[in-house]
Amino acid sequence: MVRQARSEATRQKIIDSAVDLINEIGYPAAGLADIIDRAEMTKGALYYHFDSKEVLATAIIDDGGNRVIGAFRAAGRTGSPALENVIHGVFMVADTIRNDKLAQAASRLLRTFGGFNPAAKRTYGEFLAEMTGRVKAAIAEGDVRADLDAEAVGRTIFGSMLGSELLSASLDDGKELGKHFVTTWEVLLPAIVAPDSVGYYREFLARQSTRSRDKDRP
Amino acid sequence: MVRQARSEATRQKIIDSAVDLINEIGYPAAGLADIIDRAEMTKGALYYHFDSKEVLATAIIDDGGNRVIGAFRAAGRTGSPALENVIHGVFMVADTIRNDKLAQAASRLLRTFGGFNPAAKRTYGEFLAEMTGRVKAAIAEGDVRADLDAEAVGRTIFGSMLGSELLSASLDDGKELGKHFVTTWEVLLPAIVAPDSVGYYREFLARQSTRSRDKDRP
Repeated sequence: MVRQARSEATRQKIIDSAVDLINEIGYPAAGLADIIDRAEMTKGALYYHFDSKEVLATAIIDDGGNRVIGAFRAAGRTGSPALENVIHGVFMVADTIRNDKLAQAASRLLRTFGGFNPAAKRTYGEFLAEMTGRVKAAIAEGDVRADLDAEAVGRTIFGSMLGSELLSASLDDGKELGKHFVTTWEVLLPAIVAPDSVGYYREFLARQSTRSRDKDRP
Repeated sequence: MVRQARSEATRQKIIDSAVDLINEIGYPAAGLADIIDRAEMTKGALYYHFDSKEVLATAIIDDGGNRVIGAFRAAGRTGSPALENVIHGVFMVADTIRNDKLAQAASRLLRTFGGFNPAAKRTYGEFLAEMTGRVKAAIAEGDVRADLDAEAVGRTIFGSMLGSELLSASLDDGKELGKHFVTTWEVLLPAIVAPDSVGYYREFLARQSTRSRDKDRP
């Protein structure tokens, strides 16, 4: 058991080192040699746990992707209306990507691999299904306009989030992710919310925004 | 001059080979050895033109990124209203990514490198500025709601496009890109278009959609 614990600690050290490098210089530039150096490990230790750089990347996508989806799901276990949970969940995701290095590296790897890696494909598919399910519930509750298709709305919300995150990571090093999520929601809100609920959700968004903007880095 | 032409042909052959591999198996899996093999070139020829894999990637981002932005700009030289040009331009971009291998590889590399590569950062920044400029014109022309901020709308449109493209590349191998762009526009339209213009732009979008959906691969 001691041996197993030590082996797990080694594995985690390699993942941590890879995560740091991916966030600092990007996946293509992060070589296996740099990852080993930083983790103060031998090549043998790395290959014992990961057959290749992509196997290591897949572990990060799986673990980090689950944290991102987990943050969105957690926001849904409140008994609040589904649309509140969607909006709150999206800001929880922004927080997770900003504060959790593993989640941040995973979101970079997800964009890098997309359809070429089964774990990346599964993560996007699962998140999209989760989002669409919530939107369906929000339509049933009368908060999202009944003439809209749940999948179209789910895809638009999820796609705008992904694009907003990509733009923020590319143009401001992710520092203003909270601000850009707010901006996107402000534009989307009147398109998807039922007329009777728009006033309430503008207020709800404003409250979420203040909290999220405060978390943007200077 | 013959020598120069031959050298240019070699450079192009290497780029073509890299582009094919990036589209088929993704950038991380496309090794320099595979790129040389496919181009039937020597290592020396490759290193004569490109110091590293990232220098090669940068050339593809620059050339392919210019084609994508070029397609959007070309749609703007028609003398039509700015919002028509934005919508038409976005579908021209979808066509370019589907039909032009270089543009397709560039859009994958843009997501992979994001803020870590100056060419990627420049391409996103330039496209966003172009989009925001058009939205500003559309507000002046009365087609986009005057109470909206041009940059917020530009960022939302551009971000939704990027996210939609990423989701399509990841979940359906880019086959349904046209369909997903249409879906996103259908949701966005009522949020950004001035009430008097909504009817016209729904019709305009429907016409663009038919053409774009026809180009999706089966």
